[in-house]
Amino acid sequence: MKYLLELSYIGTRYCGFQVQPGKLTIQSTLQDAIESVFGVRLPVKGCSRTDSGVHARQYFATFDSEKPIPTDRLPLALNSRLPTDIAVRSSRIVPDSFHVRHDVEWKEYEYLLLNSRIRDPFLTGRAYQCRVMDREQLGLMRRAAEGFIGKHDFSGFMSAGAKIADTVREVRYLEIIEDGELVRIRIAADGFLYNMVRIIVGTLLDVAEGRIEPSEIPGIINSRDRSRAGATAPAEGLYLNRVNFRAFE
Amino acid sequence: MKYLLELSYIGTRYCGFQVQPGKLTIQSTLQDAIESVFGVRLPVKGCSRTDSGVHARQYFATFDSEKPIPTDRLPLALNSRLPTDIAVRSSRIVPDSFHVRHDVEWKEYEYLLLNSRIRDPFLTGRAYQCRVMDREQLGLMRRAAEGFIGKHDFSGFMSAGAKIADTVREVRYLEIIEDGELVRIRIAADGFLYNMVRIIVGTLLDVAEGRIEPSEIPGIINSRDRSRAGATAPAEGLYLNRVNFRAFE
Repeated sequence: MKYLLELSYIGTRYCGFQVQPGKLTIQSTLQDAIESVFGVRLPVKGCSRTDSGVHARQYFATFDSEKPIPTDRLPLALNSRLPTDIAVRSSRIVPDSFHVRHDVEWKEYEYLLLNSRIRDPFLTGRAYQCRVMDREQLGLMRRAAEGFIGKHDFSGFMSAGAKIADTVREVRYLEIIEDGELVRIRIAADGFLYNMVRIIVGTLLDVAEGRIEPSEIPGIINSRDRSRAGATAPAEGLYLNRVNFRAFE
Repeated sequence: MKYLLELSYIGTRYCGFQVQPGKLTIQSTLQDAIESVFGVRLPVKGCSRTDSGVHARQYFATFDSEKPIPTDRLPLALNSRLPTDIAVRSSRIVPDSFHVRHDVEWKEYEYLLLNSRIRDPFLTGRAYQCRVMDREQLGLMRRAAEGFIGKHDFSGFMSAGAKIADTVREVRYLEIIEDGELVRIRIAADGFLYNMVRIIVGTLLDVAEGRIEPSEIPGIINSRDRSRAGATAPAEGLYLNRVNFRAFE
């Protein structure tokens, strides 16, 4: 049987999702808890390789076991064995053919900017305090955001070190939402390249500060030149927000 | 000159506001930062003695100094010297006659309940995960809440050890707000006895669980018997939310 877990976690203490020797990761912590419940070490697959310090409001992971544990009880059993910065929110049984990464139709990330001169203790490690932006600057960011929508080769918006053949991704939407002192940047796509959201956010911040014109975005994307995009925004503001699977049942 | 600081803080690491020998408190931490900016140790007065683990979205403190520091720069100067779980949000000069505790007209506290079987990593230490309540139980709590409104002797809703002459307080409102998986209990009064909000919340939880009828609340208050009220709800869910001063200028 294949178990599907829905998780959320604060990434601050973790070196990302994926197991790395000698480092604390979400995957290794989750495998420890599953081993404690199932009595045997089971490899876990995740829907995405979130980076060090990145948070998840919704994340999915699967593992296979023939041991039947009622799926309404499994979250509580795992949560009692997990540290309090990780929670299993729900669990269910999925067909063996289900693949937690390949079957993702689209994902939404949210990047949280604290748009204030004054820090907020409740958001330490949970939002990036940017330089203060006014309505006009947010308007520039919104115009620039339009340039990212659609199907593009985003190889200029990818950190070095990632080796992948296909760098074309389709961005469904990129919204910039004011919420008090927060600015929420929500972006959905069929997939994301390594650090793609954080580089897009860094580029939007360059637009807000007048270093890049909104009209330049299509040319920067088409150049496929990493050096023309903005800096990689810090991990602490990034949340995997929502994961949508293709119909599979 | 009297400086008035507006603060917010996460109380988790601190043994409350007030200085205690050998313990980490908000007051001592704040006095350290002020000493670093003003070059001399200055006693700080706070608007309220928040308890160990209690948070503040808004808190006020004053200190006297003849050294003129521009009030638009003071928050940043102090924040660069404070740990990230405390922030000075604004500062201004007030008349010498102003008293940060006596001049409070009313305060609002919020108690955050996580009304879910499943914990939320983003709310660890920031909300109290209660037993799951349905609409009907929340309705009972709302009816019970009405019994607290108005001027009463709340000595039955005070933890032992507090020695004060006048135990009459006037509750302005007590709202129970559903917000997704959260229940926000907001209570405003001209003042609060030691642990009063947490004991009221504990009593409302007893009402939700059927141990106390909503109609019993006036009798429990009038009995002035601590043993008839509910348990003291944990500190982690409590926020000093808003402090309102009498006009003083």
